[in-house]
Amino acid sequence: HAHQPNDVIRKIVLTIDTMNPTVKNVEYAVRGPIVQRAMQIEKELREGVKKPFTEVIKANIGDAHAMGQQPITFFRQVLALCSYPELLNENMFPEDAKNRARRILQACGGGSVGAYSASQGIDCVRQDVARYIERRDGGVPCDPDNVYLTTGASDGIVTMLKLLVCGEGASRTGVMISIPQYPLYSAALAELGAVQINYYLNEEKCWSMDLSELESSLAEARKHCNPKALCIINPGNPTGQVQSRQCIEDVIRFAAKERLFLMADEVYQDNVYAEGCQFHSFKKVLFELGPEYSDNVELASFHSTSKCYMGECGFRGGYMEVINMDAEVQAQLSKLVSVRLCPPVPGQALMDLVVNSPQPGEPSHITFMKERTATLSLLAEKAKLTEQILNTVPGITCNPVQGAMYSFPNISLPEKSIKEAKALGQAPDMFYCMKLLEETGICLVPGSGFGQKDGTYHFRMTILPPTDKLKILLAKVKEFHQKFTQQYS
Amino acid sequence: HAHQPNDVIRKIVLTIDTMNPTVKNVEYAVRGPIVQRAMQIEKELREGVKKPFTEVIKANIGDAHAMGQQPITFFRQVLALCSYPELLNENMFPEDAKNRARRILQACGGGSVGAYSASQGIDCVRQDVARYIERRDGGVPCDPDNVYLTTGASDGIVTMLKLLVCGEGASRTGVMISIPQYPLYSAALAELGAVQINYYLNEEKCWSMDLSELESSLAEARKHCNPKALCIINPGNPTGQVQSRQCIEDVIRFAAKERLFLMADEVYQDNVYAEGCQFHSFKKVLFELGPEYSDNVELASFHSTSKCYMGECGFRGGYMEVINMDAEVQAQLSKLVSVRLCPPVPGQALMDLVVNSPQPGEPSHITFMKERTATLSLLAEKAKLTEQILNTVPGITCNPVQGAMYSFPNISLPEKSIKEAKALGQAPDMFYCMKLLEETGICLVPGSGFGQKDGTYHFRMTILPPTDKLKILLAKVKEFHQKFTQQYS
Ligand SMILES: Cc1ncc(COP(=O)(O)O)c(C=O)c1O
Ligand SMILES: Cc1ncc(COP(=O)(O)O)c(C=O)c1O
Repeated sequence: HAHQPNDVIRKIVLTIDTMNPTVKNVEYAVRGPIVQRAMQIEKELREGVKKPFTEVIKANIGDAHAMGQQPITFFRQVLALCSYPELLNENMFPEDAKNRARRILQACGGGSVGAYSASQGIDCVRQDVARYIERRDGGVPCDPDNVYLTTGASDGIVTMLKLLVCGEGASRTGVMISIPQYPLYSAALAELGAVQINYYLNEEKCWSMDLSELESSLAEARKHCNPKALCIINPGNPTGQVQSRQCIEDVIRFAAKERLFLMADEVYQDNVYAEGCQFHSFKKVLFELGPEYSDNVELASFHSTSKCYMGECGFRGGYMEVINMDAEVQAQLSKLVSVRLCPPVPGQALMDLVVNSPQPGEPSHITFMKERTATLSLLAEKAKLTEQILNTVPGITCNPVQGAMYSFPNISLPEKSIKEAKALGQAPDMFYCMKLLEETGICLVPGSGFGQKDGTYHFRMTILPPTDKLKILLAKVKEFHQKFTQQYS
Repeated sequence: HAHQPNDVIRKIVLTIDTMNPTVKNVEYAVRGPIVQRAMQIEKELREGVKKPFTEVIKANIGDAHAMGQQPITFFRQVLALCSYPELLNENMFPEDAKNRARRILQACGGGSVGAYSASQGIDCVRQDVARYIERRDGGVPCDPDNVYLTTGASDGIVTMLKLLVCGEGASRTGVMISIPQYPLYSAALAELGAVQINYYLNEEKCWSMDLSELESSLAEARKHCNPKALCIINPGNPTGQVQSRQCIEDVIRFAAKERLFLMADEVYQDNVYAEGCQFHSFKKVLFELGPEYSDNVELASFHSTSKCYMGECGFRGGYMEVINMDAEVQAQLSKLVSVRLCPPVPGQALMDLVVNSPQPGEPSHITFMKERTATLSLLAEKAKLTEQILNTVPGITCNPVQGAMYSFPNISLPEKSIKEAKALGQAPDMFYCMKLLEETGICLVPGSGFGQKDGTYHFRMTILPPTDKLKILLAKVKEFHQKFTQQYS
C-alpha cells in the first residue's frame, strides 16, 4: 500500500500505513464484495437498469425476517408493552403478555427499558436463562452468576476470545476453529492478533469432527504457538451438520486431555431437521461424562435471539454461560463487560421471552406453539428441498442439511474457469458466485470466505428464502451451473 | 497473583496468570467496588438488616430513567409501533407516530426491526442524522456515508480507538485524554495496549482546556510514544463544564499543528444549563476556521441516545461522524463494523427519532416540546441547586455545573483520614465515599476513579435524582462532610 498523494499534502494522521495492522487482516465474507455488488445491482434495478432478472434473491446471510419470516406474536406484544407501558392499560393484549412485560419492567431501573441494566444483564433474565438451560440439559444445574447476557452471540464470542488471547511469537495464543468456519471467528482472531489453528471438518462424513484431524492439527500448531482453546459450531454454520453425541464426547475428552478451553457456539440449538439427529449441548454431554470432566473442563457456550424459530437478529440479544471458569478470571470478565455498560435492554427482554416462552394453559400458548412449529417445519422442508434439488445437478454434491440454516455444497469447477479466475486474482468460487450474481441476481457466498480444503470449491446458501423463491433460486443455480460448466469446458 | 491451589489440581487453562494481561489493566470506576457495595447494601436492606438509613440513593451513574426521568411519549409510541406493527391498525396513536414507524419499518429488511440492518446502520436513519448535523451546525454539509450508527457512543469510541492504536515500545500509539476523564477511555486504551497521555483540565478556570497544558503534556509524551489522537468530552463528564468557542478553536489549531486526530465526545450536546454557555460542535468550529483546517483536520464525533433530554441508555443507540478520514482507512472501518453485523435496530430507530423529532404542526409536537423542555429545565434547576448547596459546605468547593449531568466538587480531607485510608491501601476519596455510603446510603464515585491532580480529592455525583431526593442527598453530604472533618481533625 502506498500513501494516496493527497494524504501527504493533507498531512493526514490516520492512513492505511499508520492504522492498526491487525484490523487490516480482518476479513468478513458474509458482508464482503459479493454482497456489496448485490446491493449495487439492487440500486441499479431500482434506477431502471436492464438486467436478465428483475430482483436480487439474497441467500447470503442467516437473516430470517429479511427473508419474510414473521416474528412470534407473543414476543412482539411483550416488547411493545415494555416500550410503551401505557399499553398495559389497554384490553388488546393477552394477560400473559402483560404479566411478562410487568415482570421485565419491574426488573429495570426506574421501571424503564431505557435504563442501563447491570452489565452482566438483568438479574431475573439471567435466572430465567439458568432455568432454561437446566430444563434443556435434563437437570444439570446452572448458576445464574455464570450467565452473561450479550449483544448478540457475536459479542459473547469476541469477549471470551479477548480474555483468552495474549502472548507474542511462539507463545502467541492459538485458537482452534473448524474449517469451514463462520468468519466471525477468523475476524476476531485476526483483530486480536491470535493464531488461527484450522481443523477441517470431514465433508465425506457429513461435516463431522474428526479426532485424528484435531490431533494432527493441534500437534502441528504446538510447534509455533500456544494453543489454548477449541471452538465448535453445532449445529454448524456454514455446513449445516448436527454433531452426534459420540462426536461431542470425543471432542470433550480431547479437550480435557490436551487442556483446551472449549467454546461451543450453539446459536442454532433449535434448528435440527434431519431424522435421527438431535441437539446435544456440550454442557450436558460434559456432565454426563462424570466429575473427572465436569469438574475440570472449561466451557463457554453461546446462544442468541437471532436464529432458531425466532430469527430476531435486529435486537442483538444473546447470552453466554461459563463453566469451570477460574474465579479470578471470571471477576475480570465481569469487569470487562462493565466497560460497555450493558447489552441492549430490549434484546435482553427478548432473550428472556425465548427462554421463558408461554406455557400450557397460558392464553398465548397455543398461538405461540403454532407459530413456532410452523416456522421450524417450513425450515425442515426447505432443508430437504435444497439438498434434493442441488444433488440433481451434475457437478454439485451436497450433504444433507441436518440443522442450522445453510447448505454448503461442493461444486466442481472446470479447469478453464479456475485459470480465468486466477488470472483475475480472484478465488475460483468467488469468480463463480460473482458471475451467478450478475447473470441471475442470486447472491450466495463463495466457500473461500469460510475456508475449505485446497482444491475444493463450495458456496454457502441459506435455506431462508420463501419456498417459492427458494425453488426459483435452486432452479436458476442448476441452470447456471450447467451453463457455466459448458462455457468453460 | 498466585494460582489458586485447586486450579493446579484442576488443570485449568485460563487463569489470572495465563489470561490476556491487557484486560487485567482495565479499570472502570463507574461500576467499581463502591457500586458493588451499594448493591449489597440494597440487598441487606431488603432482607431487613438495620441501617442508619432506609434506602440507597444512587448518584453514581448518568442513568436518567433509573432515577425516575420519564421517557418521551412520542419516542416510545413509535418504538411500540415498530415492535408490534399490528398497532398501526389501532386508533390510539397519533398519525405522526404511525408515519415515523412506517418509514422506519419500510427501511428494515422484510419490514421488521428483527432483521439485521446494514452494518453501518439503516440508510434512512443515517440520512436523517446527516440532516440533523447540518441543521445543528448552521448548514455545514454532512455526508450520510460518513455517519456510522453504533451500539451506544461507547461502541463508536472503542471502534475508533481500535483503528488508531498500534505499535510497540517507543512507537506505541499514544492518545491524549482529559483528566478527570470518563473511564471508558482509560479502559479502552488499557485493553488496546495504547499509551494514555493525560492532560489536566483547569479546575481553577471551571475545568477548561489549557493550551499550555496540552503542549507540555504532548511534548513529554513524544519522548516515549507516538501520540496520534486527542480526545475531548464536551460538555464534560465527570466535570460538567461547557468549553467556550475560543477554547475549541485553540484545540483545533493545536491538533492541526501537531497532527493529532480529534475525537469529540459530544453525547451531552443538549445538556447546557449555565447562562452564557452554549454548545459548539467541534465540526462547526472546524469549518468556521476555513479550508486550511476543514480540509485537513481529521475528526470523529460521537453522539448517543443515552443522554440529553431523552436519557434512553438501555436502547444502546448512537452514531459517529468521521470527517477527513482517509478513504482506504474508512473502507477498513466499514469492514470492521461489519464483523459485529449491526447495531441494535430499536436503538437505531430511537436515534432516528432523536434527530428527526416531531415538527411544528405535527400532532405530537406540542407534547414533545413540553416534555423535552420540562426535563431540560429541571436538570438546569438541579445543576444550580447542586452547585449552590455544595458550596455552602466548608471544605467543599464546586465549580458551576454548566452542562452534562455531573458535579465534581473538590473536597478537602483531613490529614488523619488520608493516613488512615493509605494504611488500608485505599485512595483517600474512596475511603471517604465508602464511609459516606455506609453511614448515609448515598452512592457517589470517588474522584480517583476519573483521575485528578495529585494531592487533590473529589467525588462525582450526578444531578439526576428527583429534586426531593437530591435535596436530601445534598443535606446528607453536607452533614457527613462536617462530621467526617471533625472526626479526623
Ligand atoms: C455460528 C454463528 N455464531 C454466531 C453468530 C452471530 O449471531 P448474533 O451476533 O446475531 O447473535 C452467527 C450469525 O449468523 C452464527 O451463524
Ligand atoms: C462522556 C461519555 N461518553 C460516552 C458515554 C457512553 O454512553 P453510551 O454508550 O450509553 O452511549 C458516556 C456515558 O455515560 C459518557 O458520559
